[in-house]
Amino acid sequence: MSSTNDSLDAARVASILARVAERRPRIHCLTNTVAQNITANMLLAFGAVPSMASHPEEVAAVAGGAGAILINLGTISPEGERAIPKLLEVARQRSIPLVLDPVFVELSPLRLKLAEEVLRLPGVVVRGNAVEIAALAGPLEQSPGATRATTGAVDEIVGPSGELSIAFGHPLMSRVTGLGCASSALVAACLAIEPDPVIAAGAALTAYGIAGEIAAERCRGPGSFAVELIDAVAALDAGTLQAGAARSRRSRDTA
Amino acid sequence: MSSTNDSLDAARVASILARVAERRPRIHCLTNTVAQNITANMLLAFGAVPSMASHPEEVAAVAGGAGAILINLGTISPEGERAIPKLLEVARQRSIPLVLDPVFVELSPLRLKLAEEVLRLPGVVVRGNAVEIAALAGPLEQSPGATRATTGAVDEIVGPSGELSIAFGHPLMSRVTGLGCASSALVAACLAIEPDPVIAAGAALTAYGIAGEIAAERCRGPGSFAVELIDAVAALDAGTLQAGAARSRRSRDTA
Amino acid sequence: MSSTNDSLDAARVASILARVAERRPRIHCLTNTVAQNITANMLLAFGAVPSMASHPEEVAAVAGGAGAILINLGTISPEGERAIPKLLEVARQRSIPLVLDPVFVELSPLRLKLAEEVLRLPGVVVRGNAVEIAALAGPLEQSPGATRATTGAVDEIVGPSGELSIAFGHPLMSRVTGLGCASSALVAACLAIEPDPVIAAGAALTAYGIAGEIAAERCRGPGSFAVELIDAVAALDAGTLQAGAARSRRSRDTA
Repeated sequence: MSSTNDSLDAARVASILARVAERRPRIHCLTNTVAQNITANMLLAFGAVPSMASHPEEVAAVAGGAGAILINLGTISPEGERAIPKLLEVARQRSIPLVLDPVFVELSPLRLKLAEEVLRLPGVVVRGNAVEIAALAGPLEQSPGATRATTGAVDEIVGPSGELSIAFGHPLMSRVTGLGCASSALVAACLAIEPDPVIAAGAALTAYGIAGEIAAERCRGPGSFAVELIDAVAALDAGTLQAGAARSRRSRDTA
Repeated sequence: MSSTNDSLDAARVASILARVAERRPRIHCLTNTVAQNITANMLLAFGAVPSMASHPEEVAAVAGGAGAILINLGTISPEGERAIPKLLEVARQRSIPLVLDPVFVELSPLRLKLAEEVLRLPGVVVRGNAVEIAALAGPLEQSPGATRATTGAVDEIVGPSGELSIAFGHPLMSRVTGLGCASSALVAACLAIEPDPVIAAGAALTAYGIAGEIAAERCRGPGSFAVELIDAVAALDAGTLQAGAARSRRSRDTA
Repeated sequence: MSSTNDSLDAARVASILARVAERRPRIHCLTNTVAQNITANMLLAFGAVPSMASHPEEVAAVAGGAGAILINLGTISPEGERAIPKLLEVARQRSIPLVLDPVFVELSPLRLKLAEEVLRLPGVVVRGNAVEIAALAGPLEQSPGATRATTGAVDEIVGPSGELSIAFGHPLMSRVTGLGCASSALVAACLAIEPDPVIAAGAALTAYGIAGEIAAERCRGPGSFAVELIDAVAALDAGTLQAGAARSRRSRDTA
């Protein structure tokens, strides 16, 4: 991978997805109650296994065997707040990769404080939209070895090992609740089997974006889009990724 | 609007929906964990933006910038209970309109107490089924300027500015969990841009009922109905509202 | 019913489902936030009515009038933990049948402790996968009159009144989150109207498995499978059960 803005080729993405499907890593998600269901379903469709305990008395035991941990700050509860230091400790002790999704961090001083706490862990991958990532600019700069994945019309991934630009996806992805949250979980799933965080995030967002384009062609609104997206993620393989990437590029060239 | 039981014409409903889609108000929902996902998706399909923080330390900050607030008492938690006075304070200070959904209030003395607390705020709009509204008869009578929207085969809206009767909808709407809760959120979305609470509730329930009739024609059970309903809400515009209202009236006339 | 491994005939299952649809029992579910929505929708499709209060101050009042109670340990919260003894007390005082779903009990000492607490109540029905049931082997042996329903490729039900083997279902049922949890709720719904726990569990799992096979034929992935499963459950009747059972047996014979 060069240090300039690159995309990932479909074959590389396919090989990362195949490893997820083969190893079926468990992804422990401390995530908001709005997005829990679609996050779990997207992980299952992707070939990973979700777990979602948040009780401070059990969260370390359950997360201890996970392949990656996701901390999503949406609808954070006092209980979830108490679970965060336990997850950070388990991640540190067992070197479990960790993804942070700072939902609406710009609206809440509490979430900003919690995000700063998470970012003291080295090597965190942060996935958020442009407003959320901007609200974390300071803490991100001081975070040791952090990777940031800013998603939008074009996803920009910047980390210690380089940069990637991902131009797949569809506007309907922002019309269904929890789809951004679910993308963070897929980043965590790739991180469980791929050590380079930039490549892992790039593979997840490429695959998800291509699935989004496939789903958009088959749906007639945001309700059916969500259903089709899960089906499309579950059907991703070397062939669909290759075809999807080619078609997406063609449609951009003729736009 | 007259003070007798009227319906709203489709053009008026369409103009209210167009204002929602244009201004994209954020609706802050303290709502039950069963209905959070479909409530958020219905708001997005309607053109509004959901937020769902409930942590007592952040709920006022997040709700402060919202266009309307929804308090739904389903699966109320100790934490949600502590969030209610903070939401009431923010609604009062910033004159943010507030909708109350008193889910199963007839079964729980705790919910009755909380509903009474909410109804001390002037101008609350209450959306519930006939049993729930009846259980609140006393507190509603003493509530200053409250509007009540009783939904069922025919929705009855009664408020300081008049009364409305809405006869759209489909029986499948009571076979999917959270669809009543989601209708309260749509009432809140209209209330964010329309100052007359009777008109706002009427517009939301008219639009939702017409979408329900469209979805019922396209589905083959409650699972596909929920998906089609989101798609139908997202596709509502002057044309679909007009056609839907005409068809619904025709089918009632020939029944 | 004999004491050897039997299945239930479709007519018997249909008569139990018809009683559920006629009496519409309310099933009180203390269940995890990931599965709440699909559990409620599956209960509604099945003809039952869900309630999901968990606040320790209201849970006994709300559960008191229920036809059956489900305790599911997934994403158990400190608040849910405090609700459990109240649910056990209400179940004991009013002789309300109780189903335990010990999600991921093998990963959490806290859940093991809570499961043991639940199993001190006589006559509990436990529905879990083979790993979960194995993790509860000791407590189950000492539980007075417990029935265990171990679900998988073949569901095995063993209780005081006999044993049943159910060979319906589809692998996609393990690719959607919450479908196991929802099956426990359907067992509770049957238990609300059928006093024999082995028969009740057998009827629920037979019906659910047949619906799963119907849904699998209509879907193109786990997203559409979940939608089709709700539709298929809602459409179950004597005819679909009979046809589904016959077709399923035929396909096994030719396999």
